[in-house]
Amino acid sequence: MRIRIDLAYDGTDFHGWAAQPGLRTVQGTLEPALATALRIPAARVVCAGRTDTGVHARGQVAHLDLEPGLLSGSAGRSQDSPTVALRGRLNGILPRDLRIRRVGEAPEGFDARFSAHWRRYAYRVADDPWRVDPLRRHHVLVWPRPLDLDAMNEASDMLLGLRDFAAFCRRREGATTIRTLLDLTWVRDDEGVAVATVRADAFCHSMVRSLVGCLLAIGDGRRPVRWAVDVLSAARRDPSATVARALGLTLEEVGYPADDELAAQARHTRALREVR
Amino acid sequence: MRIRIDLAYDGTDFHGWAAQPGLRTVQGTLEPALATALRIPAARVVCAGRTDTGVHARGQVAHLDLEPGLLSGSAGRSQDSPTVALRGRLNGILPRDLRIRRVGEAPEGFDARFSAHWRRYAYRVADDPWRVDPLRRHHVLVWPRPLDLDAMNEASDMLLGLRDFAAFCRRREGATTIRTLLDLTWVRDDEGVAVATVRADAFCHSMVRSLVGCLLAIGDGRRPVRWAVDVLSAARRDPSATVARALGLTLEEVGYPADDELAAQARHTRALREVR
Repeated sequence: MRIRIDLAYDGTDFHGWAAQPGLRTVQGTLEPALATALRIPAARVVCAGRTDTGVHARGQVAHLDLEPGLLSGSAGRSQDSPTVALRGRLNGILPRDLRIRRVGEAPEGFDARFSAHWRRYAYRVADDPWRVDPLRRHHVLVWPRPLDLDAMNEASDMLLGLRDFAAFCRRREGATTIRTLLDLTWVRDDEGVAVATVRADAFCHSMVRSLVGCLLAIGDGRRPVRWAVDVLSAARRDPSATVARALGLTLEEVGYPADDELAAQARHTRALREVR
Repeated sequence: MRIRIDLAYDGTDFHGWAAQPGLRTVQGTLEPALATALRIPAARVVCAGRTDTGVHARGQVAHLDLEPGLLSGSAGRSQDSPTVALRGRLNGILPRDLRIRRVGEAPEGFDARFSAHWRRYAYRVADDPWRVDPLRRHHVLVWPRPLDLDAMNEASDMLLGLRDFAAFCRRREGATTIRTLLDLTWVRDDEGVAVATVRADAFCHSMVRSLVGCLLAIGDGRRPVRWAVDVLSAARRDPSATVARALGLTLEEVGYPADDELAAQARHTRALREVR
């Protein structure tokens, strides 16, 4: 059987998602906790979005495969369902910067990574040092110059759609950089913080932060609106387009299709990754 | 001349507002920064609500008296107004867990402490460990049992009005414990966190946290609704009513009357404190 785990973390003190020897990572913290809670020798999870060092998540999704019967056997004397009991045990074991929001049996065909329709990130920027609520300072970037959100939205619009985002991706051998950018919009929240919503079928490495870095240069007037699409068209990394700091980035939500389309979506995604 | 300073802080790493030798406090951090920014030997501020160790603030207000002309003289070559320039310099000097939101010339008769009409605090509780967003964990208390907000609101209603809150105050020799409780309501925010809004003309020491501690015992079913008003009526500290942790408490806003009533309000407050 496969279980789906919805989780949230403050990325500040994690060296990203992926387990690395000797470093505190989300996967490296979660897997031993799962093994302890389930009384199994080891656990291996797969996530929807492998976040970098310092990147936060409110809506990360992972899956874990278990021997049938294991979950109900480990529930103990709790009145809760086995999955609710597991959530409770995990939150008791895990540190406070990593919380399990939900545990459930995954529907047939579900794969946290390959069934996902889209990933949605938020990037938060306070464009004046006084504008940052100290209680939010760990997930809001401070930008020293005022941002023109109209210019940023105009530039963002030109990047939407199915494109080769090589200019905004850290190169990886043999990996495609073609993605469909579904949303890229900037609004101010009720505290005046500029919030980007960035949604795509998937993201290549450092793509959101590269897009944001480019748009910040447009927003503060150092570059014209047209620059973003010029960088994109060059189809290679532009050294003058900087990668925005991880601090402001949060994985907010992962979208999955209806249960009866999960397996087809996973097949589709795998095929795409190979063809492209 | 007098200036008004609106400020916000994450109370986690402060030993409260009041300056204390050898401890990191808000006042003890702000005053030297003001002296540096204004190039004066020392600065002395008065605040609206002297928060305890670990208590946060989004809407703290303070005032500072300056020699006339000092502010405009210190503005340097900035194009900003002297008060905006001072805010910028202060935020450059201060640590990131303490931010100055606004600096302005105070109207005639303004006193951050004595002109205040009311103080409004929020207390935030997640009544299940999975419910806490890790990015908010520094200002949301985790409560291990589910809370019945209807019961808490019923109990809260019975405490409103002009009363002697001695049962909920840490005793101080010669100080009155009579206060007017204007609002005490519980709602769930969009993440399901229970948020108390607590507003009064003024609060005595640890009053909000004592009220919340009492209401949590009602909310999780250990005490009947009637208990809060029973504790109040006893007019002395009830050792079974615990003080809720500082972590969940934030000073959100201080209300002042219209400019032409500031001086009258200050006289009224001073008189009340003496008579009561």
